[in-house]
Amino acid sequence: MERRVKQQIDFIVEADKLKNVIRRNYLTDDSRRENSAEHSWHTILMAFLLFEYAENKQNLNLLHIIKMITIHDVVEIEAGDTFMFDDEANKNKFNRENQAAKKIFTLLPYDQGKEYYELWLEFEKEETADAIFAASVDKIMPVLLNTRSNGTSWREAGVTAEKVFSTLKAIKKGPRKIQQLLEELVSTAREKGNLA
Amino acid sequence: MERRVKQQIDFIVEADKLKNVIRRNYLTDDSRRENSAEHSWHTILMAFLLFEYAENKQNLNLLHIIKMITIHDVVEIEAGDTFMFDDEANKNKFNRENQAAKKIFTLLPYDQGKEYYELWLEFEKEETADAIFAASVDKIMPVLLNTRSNGTSWREAGVTAEKVFSTLKAIKKGPRKIQQLLEELVSTAREKGNLA
Repeated sequence: MERRVKQQIDFIVEADKLKNVIRRNYLTDDSRRENSAEHSWHTILMAFLLFEYAENKQNLNLLHIIKMITIHDVVEIEAGDTFMFDDEANKNKFNRENQAAKKIFTLLPYDQGKEYYELWLEFEKEETADAIFAASVDKIMPVLLNTRSNGTSWREAGVTAEKVFSTLKAIKKGPRKIQQLLEELVSTAREKGNLA
Repeated sequence: MERRVKQQIDFIVEADKLKNVIRRNYLTDDSRRENSAEHSWHTILMAFLLFEYAENKQNLNLLHIIKMITIHDVVEIEAGDTFMFDDEANKNKFNRENQAAKKIFTLLPYDQGKEYYELWLEFEKEETADAIFAASVDKIMPVLLNTRSNGTSWREAGVTAEKVFSTLKAIKKGPRKIQQLLEELVSTAREKGNLA
């Protein structure tokens, strides 16, 4: 197998490990916690469906957004998943994931590894219009799952509505429709007793 | 919540069930069988990485390809996964999945439901250049996982190299590089004793 293809295949095989990285939140049927690979797929699906609510579409590139979502969690193979309401773990999240990104994207041919590292960095910084849209969808997904399930991961961690709003800064910068959705989901979660 | 957003959210919650649809093949570490949601993500990642090998890029739309891969397995929530080497189950696969597609995409707002049904149908027919590329990536993924693992699902089903080549017609229509990859993977699988 030629070197370039071999590097790509080795990366794809390494990425298989993301299916064993377990997140804190549960599936909506509460049967088990979610893994980061299936979460990535679900977030891609949501991004396609809700893209119509982006307000500044002329500044957005949907393919770039989807690519960012596809690779943004791959670093967790090395760094593990970081629960968004765990303030302590989030303090060094960027440094841990940056180390992981530098390691894992090096498996790829140089040009693709560089592109994917930059996509990961763009997503994490939440500064570009594409990254803000991608991050707002990625952040609202576990809120939706927690609201439609028994909210076990929030109950376990004693998450309050105030905590949700103060943590999910990406959503505040995102489309108004996704901000409204967050408010409605938090209100439903509160009524169900899923929030502390 | 306004009706359109509610329909989209209900579909996204329904799609969560794809995480519990279990495929025949195992993860590369042989720890468990794969589910269709994480498979969809892995296939999207592979499509991004190998798109450079498509020979007719002027006829291809990568965003359309990725969208097709994202939704193509959602019908399995109703129809279940169909093992590609199970000839009997594949006889009525199209009809079962067509029924499922008509049911599940109806959850969406009419325009999106219609678009997604047509994407599913395009993928299944493997006639357009986009569908052929998408299907060739989707079909080579389990070959890769079976080759890098102990090939348990192939051993269980007594799959031969001839069966792999005759079944994976989509790959024969796909990029030459992916055809070559298939030959190399089958050769490795045979050496490892993963094929009957």
